[in-house]
Amino acid sequence: MSIRYLTARLAQQIDEELMGAAGAFSLDQLMELAGLACAQTLATVYDKERYPRVLVCCGPGNQGGDGLVAARHLGMFGYKPVIWMPKPGSKDIYKRLHKQCANMDIPTLPASDPSQAESTLSTALASSDVVLDAIFGFSFQPPVRAPFDTALPLIARANVPIVSVDIPSGWDVERGDAEGRGLRPDVLVSLTAPKEGVRRFAGRHFLGGRFVSRSVEERYELNLPGYPGVAQIVELAR
Amino acid sequence: MSIRYLTARLAQQIDEELMGAAGAFSLDQLMELAGLACAQTLATVYDKERYPRVLVCCGPGNQGGDGLVAARHLGMFGYKPVIWMPKPGSKDIYKRLHKQCANMDIPTLPASDPSQAESTLSTALASSDVVLDAIFGFSFQPPVRAPFDTALPLIARANVPIVSVDIPSGWDVERGDAEGRGLRPDVLVSLTAPKEGVRRFAGRHFLGGRFVSRSVEERYELNLPGYPGVAQIVELAR
Repeated sequence: MSIRYLTARLAQQIDEELMGAAGAFSLDQLMELAGLACAQTLATVYDKERYPRVLVCCGPGNQGGDGLVAARHLGMFGYKPVIWMPKPGSKDIYKRLHKQCANMDIPTLPASDPSQAESTLSTALASSDVVLDAIFGFSFQPPVRAPFDTALPLIARANVPIVSVDIPSGWDVERGDAEGRGLRPDVLVSLTAPKEGVRRFAGRHFLGGRFVSRSVEERYELNLPGYPGVAQIVELAR
Repeated sequence: MSIRYLTARLAQQIDEELMGAAGAFSLDQLMELAGLACAQTLATVYDKERYPRVLVCCGPGNQGGDGLVAARHLGMFGYKPVIWMPKPGSKDIYKRLHKQCANMDIPTLPASDPSQAESTLSTALASSDVVLDAIFGFSFQPPVRAPFDTALPLIARANVPIVSVDIPSGWDVERGDAEGRGLRPDVLVSLTAPKEGVRRFAGRHFLGGRFVSRSVEERYELNLPGYPGVAQIVELAR
């Protein structure tokens, strides 16, 4: 039995179940464990001696929240993260997570006016060793809007290795990078279970989200692999 | 510079700062990371092949919440935890954390009437390989009240190894086990920083709580050791 790839609708349904009355998880909890899994994945592939400077790119939704949690843990692990979050989400949790990063002296790139946004990002990319792509997640719906429409090509061309969270930004959640406009990550960390769109992803692929109960796993026939030891991630076989 | 041992008052102050407007952490986040650290400590010392059956003893306060999070992670790690929580706290978060354990089929010992409480606990201890003591934490004030007053001697005499969280239950937070009535744990996991009362603890001593920023650490002169790799715990030198 191989692992199940989720449609966008099923991913949404499992997420709602985990956080609903039946699952009883709070967003704070799931985001903490998801972000920790992202940070552990990056640290597993890119060691902090050779790749200390991590540009954490955060979108306006929950995936951006995962990115903020990951940035904090990467700071704790000894990396030098920098946050790029041009459209901060309005939920209170994002403000709290961002403040936690600021308290750790993790800098955020200035929100510049549109004419300078590209050069700000380009300069940051030129002084980064690896990118954590936490821009769009499983609830992404095209089209890619500003400023991400011009940012994705910049990131894609920067010749910096990319670790994407859940769905590489710009990819369709179910059809993948059908239009060839998305990022081309070297590493992917899927959360809870991988999504349909990444079936053909050929890089190193990790799974995070060690909070799915056996009963949820069986009910949705997820066929998840076992996680090793006390790790929050497991690498999927290619 | 050696690690700082905290008074009860200072521990409280740091806790309030982490969760206040300045620190911006939620209780959900800190409890998740604290409970994960407890589970990792137990798993580091007691492997799940030889010590699968963990009796997780939870008190009525936040330490009991740490215990519930640890029970869930221990279940995820492949242990067979059982919860003993005779006085569940009233906060909503404890109910959610308990429900998450129930969803993972982690059993809770029945809340029996006082005449049977001792035999319920004794029977559970006889079929446990290790105890996680999450009964009282740094806000404990004597005296030990029922049913814990009769439970602590039962646990202490059970000849089962004990992992205590923050402060071994029955110990004074600052003076330690001055009266000789507390548990005698084999392993201790201090959270954020160790407390005055455990200065002379002679067993294996771990530190958890990898969420303290450098600025908080410096301001309170905590002199924490570095955590290795992506671990949520670090063992303190004896």
